[in-house]
Amino acid sequence: MSHPHADQVKSFLISLQDDICNALALADGGKGFVEDAWTRPAGGGGRSRVLTGGKVFEQAGVNFSHVSGDTLPASATAHRPELAGRRFEAMGVSLVIHPENPHVPTSHANVRFFIAEKDGEAPVWWFGGGFDLTPYYPHEEDVVHWHTVARDLCEPFGQQVYADYKRWCDEYFFLKHRNEARGVGGLFFDDLNAWGFERSFAFMQAVGRGYTEAYLPIVARRKATPWTEAERQFQLYRRGRYVEFNLVWDRGTLFGLQTGGRTESILMSMPPLVRWEYGYQPQPGSPEAALYERFLPPRDWV
Amino acid sequence: MSHPHADQVKSFLISLQDDICNALALADGGKGFVEDAWTRPAGGGGRSRVLTGGKVFEQAGVNFSHVSGDTLPASATAHRPELAGRRFEAMGVSLVIHPENPHVPTSHANVRFFIAEKDGEAPVWWFGGGFDLTPYYPHEEDVVHWHTVARDLCEPFGQQVYADYKRWCDEYFFLKHRNEARGVGGLFFDDLNAWGFERSFAFMQAVGRGYTEAYLPIVARRKATPWTEAERQFQLYRRGRYVEFNLVWDRGTLFGLQTGGRTESILMSMPPLVRWEYGYQPQPGSPEAALYERFLPPRDWV
Repeated sequence: MSHPHADQVKSFLISLQDDICNALALADGGKGFVEDAWTRPAGGGGRSRVLTGGKVFEQAGVNFSHVSGDTLPASATAHRPELAGRRFEAMGVSLVIHPENPHVPTSHANVRFFIAEKDGEAPVWWFGGGFDLTPYYPHEEDVVHWHTVARDLCEPFGQQVYADYKRWCDEYFFLKHRNEARGVGGLFFDDLNAWGFERSFAFMQAVGRGYTEAYLPIVARRKATPWTEAERQFQLYRRGRYVEFNLVWDRGTLFGLQTGGRTESILMSMPPLVRWEYGYQPQPGSPEAALYERFLPPRDWV
Repeated sequence: MSHPHADQVKSFLISLQDDICNALALADGGKGFVEDAWTRPAGGGGRSRVLTGGKVFEQAGVNFSHVSGDTLPASATAHRPELAGRRFEAMGVSLVIHPENPHVPTSHANVRFFIAEKDGEAPVWWFGGGFDLTPYYPHEEDVVHWHTVARDLCEPFGQQVYADYKRWCDEYFFLKHRNEARGVGGLFFDDLNAWGFERSFAFMQAVGRGYTEAYLPIVARRKATPWTEAERQFQLYRRGRYVEFNLVWDRGTLFGLQTGGRTESILMSMPPLVRWEYGYQPQPGSPEAALYERFLPPRDWV
């Protein structure tokens, strides 16, 4: 283990995965998660947990992984391409939740810790992560709640933290080929090192712990809303954007596929059922049009 | 128009699109194609034609496009990265056909003509293209027919042509993250210039014309085969591989998205309905296992 605190981070991540899975399984009320423990020939391994066909969640995937490699890919760091090519160690928890009911938003969270090493130089470490929400039939109060939790957990770390990482999230989860946001955002950070280890780690913990606090009240509020077949079809169509973002633009997915990651675990982010439709346009004045017009364009929510 | 024969290539491509659409509409027996003519602010335009909800084809997209740009992206050429950054002109026909019946294979074809220019240097031109087949419940005789048409159309152009372009197709349509072929291949070529214009153009025409000859007899043979819900679910699952290939690995899709192409036309290749399932494995000895074991690993078919 190349960083004196790596064990501590790993323990946190493992218990975070446990806690999130327990909370999601409780919210779902169905048969819960199935676990696959795996090892990677090139080094490391993980625990993939998936819940499928739940009462609320059509598919929920929560991964823990801890991998190492000989050459860090450029996708692993936003701001320090000079670290590409170094030996590295990476650990994280990553999750994507696809509810069945189109009135319950899809959510994603990730927290990660990287160490990059080079002979004769001090190891470089950093944290990254965040969470973001992708609704189909959004409610203003849900989005405000989501961003309020995000803002409140950032507050102890500085006045600008929420504003900066909220903006970074809006910029990151953006489909350039559609000129369209993936959802209503949340928090995104990467290369976090300047605060020192203790404070950076504390922030990563706050983000990881904050996710269920942000998401589960929205699930509870919307899971009993009746939905029509037309609403379901719109949800399946919008899930196509999720696929497009993750496969074309997402550095996390790219990092996994480039480093010979475990494909089945990386692609647990894919929705269980997806639809594409040529030239779809929402009806003016419809709830579908409201998503495009009032919710997807980045704005201040709190 | 920067190449003396560009008008001739364009006329061929437009009539090829017409002929392919007519033949597919006839084979489908439903309401036929709808056309969108479009122009591109940065230069050029196209004709996108889509057939949805047909009697045989759940979705068939056949695009013609003719675009130009200031800087050729690296994805446009396999072997001559030194041309990246030049002014360019590109025209082509590209199609993907997704039948509803899992016993009818998905097919893809593309033919294209590129010209790259630079002040003070002679323009460089080349052809590219090919066609490939993606079955779900394959029949050996169908795959042999497909490759026989491919081999026969290559024969007048040289003894090695089929072998070379068949291998290139196997290499190109390969999902590295799955260590798995997309389908049973066909032909793929790029950077074709060394034969001179007349012969290169004749080859591209033979490939474009050969596609319906290769595909439609298979459609005719399989379209009335009854299918079960389980077979349909397997088809939807395998369509996920199509999405993964096109969004993660396909240079054509990348080229379109990188050059500010028309997203709706580029993503007409996406299947209308797709499924992902964590950790799916076919039952040993099943027809689904036969696809993985006997058809996807590249082999000689003729």
